[in-house]
Order: sequence, then structure tokens, then C-alpha cells
Amino acid sequence: MKIYQLVAKDGQGRRISRVFDYFIMTLILLSVLAIILESIKEVNSQFGSVLWVFNIISVVVFSIEYLIRLYVSDLTHPSTSRIKSACRFVFSAYGLIDLLAILPFYLPMLIRMDLRFIRTLRLTRFLRILKMNRYNDSLDLIWSVIKEKRSELMVTGFISFLLLLFASFVMYYIEGEQQPEQFPNILASFWWAVATLTTVGYGDVYPITGLGKVISGLIAIMGVGIIALPTGLISAGFMNKIEDKKKDLNTCPHCGKEID
Amino acid sequence: MKIYQLVAKDGQGRRISRVFDYFIMTLILLSVLAIILESIKEVNSQFGSVLWVFNIISVVVFSIEYLIRLYVSDLTHPSTSRIKSACRFVFSAYGLIDLLAILPFYLPMLIRMDLRFIRTLRLTRFLRILKMNRYNDSLDLIWSVIKEKRSELMVTGFISFLLLLFASFVMYYIEGEQQPEQFPNILASFWWAVATLTTVGYGDVYPITGLGKVISGLIAIMGVGIIALPTGLISAGFMNKIEDKKKDLNTCPHCGKEID
Amino acid sequence: MKIYQLVAKDGQGRRISRVFDYFIMTLILLSVLAIILESIKEVNSQFGSVLWVFNIISVVVFSIEYLIRLYVSDLTHPSTSRIKSACRFVFSAYGLIDLLAILPFYLPMLIRMDLRFIRTLRLTRFLRILKMNRYNDSLDLIWSVIKEKRSELMVTGFISFLLLLFASFVMYYIEGEQQPEQFPNILASFWWAVATLTTVGYGDVYPITGLGKVISGLIAIMGVGIIALPTGLISAGFMNKIEDKKKDLNTCPHCGKEID
Amino acid sequence: MKIYQLVAKDGQGRRISRVFDYFIMTLILLSVLAIILESIKEVNSQFGSVLWVFNIISVVVFSIEYLIRLYVSDLTHPSTSRIKSACRFVFSAYGLIDLLAILPFYLPMLIRMDLRFIRTLRLTRFLRILKMNRYNDSLDLIWSVIKEKRSELMVTGFISFLLLLFASFVMYYIEGEQQPEQFPNILASFWWAVATLTTVGYGDVYPITGLGKVISGLIAIMGVGIIALPTGLISAGFMNKIEDKKKDLNTCPHCGKEID
Repeated sequence: MKIYQLVAKDGQGRRISRVFDYFIMTLILLSVLAIILESIKEVNSQFGSVLWVFNIISVVVFSIEYLIRLYVSDLTHPSTSRIKSACRFVFSAYGLIDLLAILPFYLPMLIRMDLRFIRTLRLTRFLRILKMNRYNDSLDLIWSVIKEKRSELMVTGFISFLLLLFASFVMYYIEGEQQPEQFPNILASFWWAVATLTTVGYGDVYPITGLGKVISGLIAIMGVGIIALPTGLISAGFMNKIEDKKKDLNTCPHCGKEID
Repeated sequence: MKIYQLVAKDGQGRRISRVFDYFIMTLILLSVLAIILESIKEVNSQFGSVLWVFNIISVVVFSIEYLIRLYVSDLTHPSTSRIKSACRFVFSAYGLIDLLAILPFYLPMLIRMDLRFIRTLRLTRFLRILKMNRYNDSLDLIWSVIKEKRSELMVTGFISFLLLLFASFVMYYIEGEQQPEQFPNILASFWWAVATLTTVGYGDVYPITGLGKVISGLIAIMGVGIIALPTGLISAGFMNKIEDKKKDLNTCPHCGKEID
Repeated sequence: MKIYQLVAKDGQGRRISRVFDYFIMTLILLSVLAIILESIKEVNSQFGSVLWVFNIISVVVFSIEYLIRLYVSDLTHPSTSRIKSACRFVFSAYGLIDLLAILPFYLPMLIRMDLRFIRTLRLTRFLRILKMNRYNDSLDLIWSVIKEKRSELMVTGFISFLLLLFASFVMYYIEGEQQPEQFPNILASFWWAVATLTTVGYGDVYPITGLGKVISGLIAIMGVGIIALPTGLISAGFMNKIEDKKKDLNTCPHCGKEID
Repeated sequence: MKIYQLVAKDGQGRRISRVFDYFIMTLILLSVLAIILESIKEVNSQFGSVLWVFNIISVVVFSIEYLIRLYVSDLTHPSTSRIKSACRFVFSAYGLIDLLAILPFYLPMLIRMDLRFIRTLRLTRFLRILKMNRYNDSLDLIWSVIKEKRSELMVTGFISFLLLLFASFVMYYIEGEQQPEQFPNILASFWWAVATLTTVGYGDVYPITGLGKVISGLIAIMGVGIIALPTGLISAGFMNKIEDKKKDLNTCPHCGKEID
């Protein structure tokens, strides 16, 4: 029961749970920093061993944390049997993230790609911090607005996708012959279309023919409109939420009673 | 009558119509994918024959679909005579798109440019899917807001066009002598202006003279304003629509009277 | 009096005035097109003489128009004496534009720089067309919103300017030594700052030092905020205008009388 | 007492205070201009001595101003003792800025980096001018909206940061091997992520692998959303402020009763 209090979200042992949470949080942050530092060759050649030791310590701590969470899974993920509870934890979102964060250390030679970066996923646990404090409402507000305007945003996204696809096709046939290296196929053309519509414009791929420039200009101008649509939708959504909140406190001007 | 049910939008034979619709839709998607794959040299050299066979099959299916639609045109496009109905279908938007999607196959040597990409136009038929389902309202809402703010958006567009034209003229006279290859004429200068005002900034054309940079900076700053105008208009439009919808329902739940 | 009707804005001779207006408008558009075509070397070498003849014709027509407007200036710009009226017309905005549009032809050798592009200024007369038709309200709405939010937009502009200036100073000291060719002085640094804050990012100047990249990233992120401010202001302005218009039609819910 | 009136914000000697303020303001502007001119080699080699003399004069004036402000600190920053007042002034925001603006002149050899640019900080004193005049309300409005939406903006910023971090990690593992010079470590990858999410897109770093382009495209598209969120929040904030102001005045002009 004591151990449960460590990882409990709203358990009685709030203080110890807090301390444990902040300790894990700090370790996550430090391990993310360690990955960044490791990637810098100059730092790695000098402090490589320090980072390695820290890496081992953090993995050990995360492993113990994982085992604790697995041990108390009958309390956090109640089910008919202990094994089912453990399974429910292991295959829960956080369970998988926790496992992925330590697995790369134990299975170093199994898969070639470095999975350490998946530890970043643990950063999503920051959101749990947000859930505890006053920023909770803000995140909820943003999320509820996006959810409310979901179908409109999806339609905007779909129109954008059609536009991107159409522009890529046209551009491939126009520029493909002139710039076979920049527009070798429609996928490459799609890359140009995304960079143009989002107004990023890296400058690695751009049209050189007259007609290509006309199409590109039109896509760039449509890009401004495509950016305007979600912004307008989200503005209206936020405005709407604020008004709804205000209306909760309103009374009917005729009978004086509250309007819910 | 049975055949009509296949292509009918709201016929009695809803189920078979649905199946037919999804089949055609899937085939459109696959043929678009095939065009993309064909454009990739590595894929084309290996699976070229497979793609070619698929191409023939899809064209045959689209041709049969076209003939069916032509056959039932007296029901979908009712007119005084059967020939008039057929004409009305052939020259309708979807009729032309359907024709253009199969024509390139039958007339391969008539015109030099590859028209296959026009098949993408068939993607517009996706919108018919949207029309059927719950996203219908979203598309209508977006469209009605754009239509409502049409004249303001056109004025913004016109001001932007004047700004672009003026900037191109000035830039050509300023940078033309210094960079004859980047600013050979006013059209090239216009290309720079569009890339700057939309804040894409590919980096293929940029000013190098002091005065040119001042003009360019001003255009870029105006670009931020030009983006703000349509966004503001569309935000206000969406907000307005939401309020109108609310006002329709605005009665006090206690006394039943309307609230202004 | 007949001649006055030609150029009158709301004279009795509306029809002839309209025809004259559209004729001048078309000629302006064609002369703008001629300047664009002249700037393209391939076109100029082939159709140079045609464009030259058109140039002479258009200047002659514009000169006659100018003389007509000068002749009827006592009616369009009434003053105590005929000479004062003429002066008032000559130094009015349109008078100066009209003069500048024909002057470059008559004084070809006086000043070296080609002034022909000033003829573009005549495009501003398009706005007069707008004034006549139904887009009038749209232009007024946009203008009134910008004017209403004038002081807020100016403050935003001033904050942006301080930010740009500060970023340029810092960047010059950071990057100046490493990239003496890209950041030779603070003005060059300012050019980078404008391209970054407006998110154009041509790619001709960018930081290469670590600290420079941190500053650059911060400026780019602030750029997103700086774009959000005018957009938000203009959105709110448009929304406000729409509500004001609605309120004009509202009645007080207590006494039923209209609220102005 | 006379000297106090010089630097007093709302003292009785308003006129002399104004003159002094404008004199200092002009000198600040000129000294900023002097720093810009000094940085331009062509100007510096020709007018270097003039700029140097101006530099000395301005520093002397700023020093005198600093001493005056220090002398009257018992009036501007009242405290129990004169020394405490002086300390409060010296460690106040403006006190530190004033000191930093003159210190670099007196301690030229102490630290290697040129601190002259800190004089730009004195530009923040422009804001004091704003405080006096009608733009006061505008600045307050902008600031109050940002403050009101503080927590939502912070959450947006936090989500953006997580997104940037995650994209940098993924990109380093994907592109790092292919482009070891462009993506040598995660910090460099972060630089790319910022340039992409803010849609600046300098073009110095961009993905070349297929997977890298997919990730980059997704980040660019998310960038559009990330820009939409603060814009929507700020729009709603401004709208809300305007409505609150209106509600204060919302009484029927006929019967005098309030309207909900």
C-alpha cells in the first residue's frame, strides 16, 4: 500500500507522491538533456563516460519505477485477475511509453536503429503535471475548441490535400522535363507543394519555367487563404467558448431567472 | 431502371448505389496512386507492366461507367429528348471530367502533352462523398462564410494585386541593372513580389541593392498585413454565422419569451 | 460644358462620362501591359516598334485628357480665379499623377532614371472605379477597421520596430565577426531581422554561430506573435463592425423602442 | 528642487521637464543612429572622428543625466535614507539601463565584448513617451489581452516546444547519417525545427531523405496550426475586451434600464 502511494495520482500519500513525481520528472528532463549532449560530438568525446554512467543510473531508476507500476497495477488498473491488471498496464499508453523508454537499453543489439529518442515520449508525462495545476483549464479550452471545430478543420485539411495533390501533378508535368533532378516524380513535386502552401519555402525546389511560376504563385496565394481558414475557425471557436461561459452567468431580462 | 439505381444519388436502390460508389471511389484513389507510382522511375522500371495492366482495367471500368451514365442521362438530366439529355450530361461538369479521365487513353497520340493528370479532377468527386455525410454542414459553413465576405476578399485581393504590380515595377528599375539574370523583366520581378508578399521566400530571387532591400522589407511587412486582412474577415464571418445560429434558438427556458 | 461632362464624376452626361472613363481605364491597363512587355527583351526586340507607336498614341491621349482636365479645372476644383483652380488641379493627388504619367515622355533626357513606371500610379485610379460600384462598402469597411485600430496597429508596429532594431544590434555583434560578408554592418543585420520576423526567410543571410541561431529562433518565434497581434486586432475590428450594424436594427427588450 | 523638476514625470515644472525629455530622447535616437553609422565601414572611415566626438558628447550628457537622477533619487524613489533611495534607483530597471548605457565608455578595456549596443536598451524609454500620450490605452489593451490569455499562450508554447523537441530528435536520427554536416547533433536539428515550424525556412538546413521530408512536411503543416492557435486566442481576447467595454455602457436610451 505504501508503494502504491508513490505512484498514485490522487492517493492519500500526496506529499510522497509529489516528491516521487518531481524526482522522475527531473530525471526525464535530465535524460533528454543527456541525449542532446550525447549527440554533440565535442561533448560526447569529453564527457562520454559521465553521460554513460548517468544513462545507466537513469535506466535503472526507470526500470524500478516500471516494476513498481507493474506491481501496483492491480490498484491502478483494476481487473478481474492480477495478470489481467498487469496486461492492462503494460498495453496502456503510459505503460508502453515507459517500456519503450527502457527497452532500448536492454536490447541494444536486437534492432539496428537507435530507439533512445523514444524516451522523449516520456516528455508527454509533463502533460500530467499540467493536469494537476491551474493550466489544466487552458489545455482543456484549447482542446475543446479544436474538437468542436474538428469537422470544419478536417474539411479544410481535405481541401488543402486535394490542392496539394493537384498542384503536384500539374507541377510534375510542367517542371519535370526542365528540372529532372528537382522534380523527378510526383512525390518530389508533393514536397515542393507542401513547402509552398505552408509558406515555408526552403528554396531547395522551386519552379524555373514561366507556367511553373504562375502555378507556384497561385499555390502560395492560396496558401495564405488556407492559413486564414483554420485561424478564423479557431478564433470563432475561442470567442464562442468565452461567450458560453459568460452566458452561464446571465439572467433572462423578462422574468429575472437564470438561464442555464 | 436497375442500371439507373447504380448511379442514382438518392434512388431507391441505395445499397447497390453505395457499393458502386465506393467501388468507383476506390478505383479513382488507386488510379491516382498508380499515376504517382508510375512517375517514380525505380517503381516504373520494376512494376511498369503491372501498372499498365491496372491502367487498362481502370480505363475500361471508367468507360463502362461513362456509358452507363450516358445511357441513364434521360433520368439524371431530364430534357425534352433523349439526345438533349445526353448532351446535357456530356457538357455537365461531371460529364466533362468523366470524359477527360478516359479520353487520354483513347487518343494517346493526338496531343503531345500527357493528359493523364486530368484524372485527378475525378478527385473532385470525393466532394460528393462529403455531400452525403455529416461533413456536409462544415463544407457549407466554410463556403457560405467565403461567399458572404466575397466582395471584401476581392477588394483585399485587388489591393494586393496593385501592391504586387507596383513593387514589381519599382524592383525591376532598381535591381534590373545590378541583377540582370534575376530581374530580367517585370514578370520575373512579379515572381519575386509574389514570393515575398506571401512570405514564402524561396531564396532564388532576392534584392542585393540597399534600396531594393528597403522595398523588399516594406513588401514583406505589408505581406503580414495582407495576410491579417483575409484572416480577420474570415474569423468575423465564422463568428457571425455562429451567433446567427444561436439567435435562432435564443428563448428563455423559464418564460419562453425571445431574448433580443 | 460638353467637355466638362466627359470628365465629370457625377455630371448629367453620365453615359458619355462612363464611355470616356472606360476608354481611359482600358488605355491605362494596356499601357501598363506595354511597359511589362517592353521589359521582356524577346518581345521588345520583335514588337519594339509596335510598342513604341502605342506608347506615343497613349501619351498623346493622356496629354489631351490632362489638358481637358486642366481646362475644366474651374468646375472640378472651384476657386476664386481660373488660375487658382488650375493650380489646385495641378497640385492635387490625381493632377500630379496625371502629370507624372506623361512628363517622362516629354522630358526624356532631363533625368537619367526611367520614370515610365510612375505611370503605374495611374492604376490608383482603379480605386475610383471601386468607388462607383458595389465594392465601395467593402473598401470602406476595410478602411474603417484599419482606421479604428490605427493606434493599436501603430503600437504593434513600434514594438516590432524596437524588436527588429534590438535584434539587428545583437546579431551584428554576434555574427559580424564570423560572417563579415553577410553581416558587414547593422543595416545588413536589419535586413536579416526583417526577413526573419516576417517569416519570409530568403536564405541569403542566416546565422551560423550557436548564439546567433538562438537569437534568430527567438525572433522567428516572436514573429509568429507579431503576426498574431494585427490579425487579432483586425478580426476583432471586423467583428465589432458587424455587431454595430446588427445593433442598429435592435430594439430594447423592456420598452420595445429602437436603440440607435 | 529645480533639478528634480527636470526629470520629474508629473512634476509642476511640466514644460522644462518636457524639453529635457525631448532633448534626451533626441540624443538617444541620434546615438542609436551613430552606432548604426559606425558599423558601416565606408561611413566610419570618413566620418569616424565626427562620430567619436558625438559619442563623447552623448556619453557626457547621459552621465550628467544619470548623476541628476541619482541626486534626486530621494524624491523619485523615496526611502528611509538617502543611500537606500540611491540604491533603489541604481537597481531599478531604468537605473540599470541608464548605467549600462554609459558604463561601456568608462570601462573600455575591462571586458572584451563591445557593450555599446546595450545603449539600445535606452530605446525602451520611448515607452515612457507612449505612457504620456494617447497611445497609452492601446499599449494597455494589447498588454491586458496578452496577460489575460497568458496561461493559454504558455500551454500553446509548451506544446510547440514538445513538438520541436520531438521533431529534432526524430530528424537527427533520420537525417543525421545522410547529412552529417547539416544535422551534426540534436541542437542543429532543433534549429531546423524552429525554422520549419515558424515557416521561416531559410533553406540552409532541409531534409533530403524521403522519411525526413514526410516529417518536415508534417511539422510545416502543424506550424500552420501552431500559428493559428495564438492568433485565435488573441482575436478572442481583443473581441472580449471590446464587448466588456460596450457592456459597461449598455443601457436603453429610452427607458434607461440595463440590457443584459
